[in-house]
This record gives sequence, C-alpha cells and structure tokens, in this order.
Amino acid sequence: MLSDTHYMTLALEEAMSAFDNGEIPVGCVVVADGRVIGRGHNLTETLTDVTAHAEIQAITAACQTLGGKYLAQCTLYVTLEPCVMCAGAIGWAQVGRLVYAASDPKRGYTQLAPNALHPKCKVVAGVMADEAAELLQNFFKARR
Amino acid sequence: MLSDTHYMTLALEEAMSAFDNGEIPVGCVVVADGRVIGRGHNLTETLTDVTAHAEIQAITAACQTLGGKYLAQCTLYVTLEPCVMCAGAIGWAQVGRLVYAASDPKRGYTQLAPNALHPKCKVVAGVMADEAAELLQNFFKARR
Repeated sequence: MLSDTHYMTLALEEAMSAFDNGEIPVGCVVVADGRVIGRGHNLTETLTDVTAHAEIQAITAACQTLGGKYLAQCTLYVTLEPCVMCAGAIGWAQVGRLVYAASDPKRGYTQLAPNALHPKCKVVAGVMADEAAELLQNFFKARR
Repeated sequence: MLSDTHYMTLALEEAMSAFDNGEIPVGCVVVADGRVIGRGHNLTETLTDVTAHAEIQAITAACQTLGGKYLAQCTLYVTLEPCVMCAGAIGWAQVGRLVYAASDPKRGYTQLAPNALHPKCKVVAGVMADEAAELLQNFFKARR
C-alpha cells in the first residue's frame, strides 16, 4: 500500500499543471485499490466555468473509469479543502475517504456545509498542507 | 417583462425531458434580460455522473453564452430546491436571483448550507411548487 503522501504528491502535480496554466492551483486524484482512476485540476478560467473545479473533473473521470456513479471504495485526494459545491459532489458520489492538504477557512465545506459528505466518509486533513498552501501563496503573490 | 411562472414553465419542460429519459425530473433555465441563455435537466443516469444536475448544466451553458464566469444579472429558475453542490455552484457564479419551485427538506441547501449563495442573491421559493412536486412524485411512483 502506497502512502497518502504518495497520492497527495500526484494531486500536487495536478495543482502545478493548473498553476502553469494561470489557474488557481488546486489538484485532485481519485484512487481505488491503489490505482489512480481519475484526476483533474482547476480549469475555471480555461473553460470559463465556475463548476470546473479539480474535484468535479476527477469525480467525473473516476466514474467514467468505473462505469458507475458511486465511489464508496475510493479515496479522493485534493490539495485544498473542498468548497461547498465540491463537498456536495463528494457526498453524492458517496466517496468513502477524503484526504485534503491545506484548509480553506473562508470557502471550505467544514465551515459552510459540515454535513455535506456521506455519513460514512472518513476524512483526513493536513497531508502535505504546507506544500499545497505554499503553491497557492506563490500563485496569488505572482498575481499582485 | 414575462413572469416567473413563464420561465418556471420552461424549467418544468426541461424536467419533463429528464422524466422521459428515466432521470429524476429536475429542470433549470437561466435568464438574462428576459432571454433564456442556458438550460439543462438532470442527466446523472445518462452520463453516469452525479455532478450532472440540471443547475450545473444550465450554469455551464449560460456562461458559455455570455463568455464570462459570472451570472450576477441573471435569474436561475429550477424546479427543485438546489442541493448543496448546486447551491455552491450558484454561489460561485454569483447568480443574482434564484427562483425555485418545490422544496427539498432532505437534501436542500437551506438545511445543509444556508450560506452557500452569494450574499446579494435574492431567493424566491414555491413558484409552481405543486406542479414540480407532482412530477417528482409521479416519477418515484412509477419506479416502485
């Protein structure tokens, strides 16, 4: 079994792809049985679409890989605490385990929609939080 | 100016399209300056994708029509109270006015994420609620 740090590193690689494309750098991978079955990064500017968050891309991709709507046996790794929209999507997909890196005190679901996830979803926060937060800070610093 | 009932009737037509395709019947239209600039209906089964709710389709379509990410001047009409995910999307898009028909006490955002919308968003609930609820009831009755 590979560690949470291993998969979060892959999510951070997705976030760096977003960064390189001028997008707020957030990345996500969905893992089932140790295999990445969906990945994505923020594409809101590229697609002119506020719904194109990393998690939405990765959930859609994972469901296409599996051929089913539910991700109960999966872990979703994302570099930033999901927003309300993405927490709602994670809830609908019945994701079994959520691992996120940096917290988002302003827009994060733990503040705004603490019961959005499936009741059985296990949550781990803070894995590689410093790396993820630094990438976000560098992005916003470069924009000032 | 056409009435809210006029546009909700269009959203109900979208919901009926969903019904005819074996999807939970929810429909949505986005209106700017009296013109429908985005529409959608639930496609979760067809696309095997829990994120394919009516509102997500309609917001994405409206943003493509406008060529911008924000819908502050728009009214979004939907036949069922938005879920957490869709309320989050409506919030990100800064939709200026939300009109919904039937309430959803179990999954609706007013219970689970009451602050998900943009603070300036005006909300009207209950427009054609009976028609929307009846369509949903007929759907679930037929499935039993």
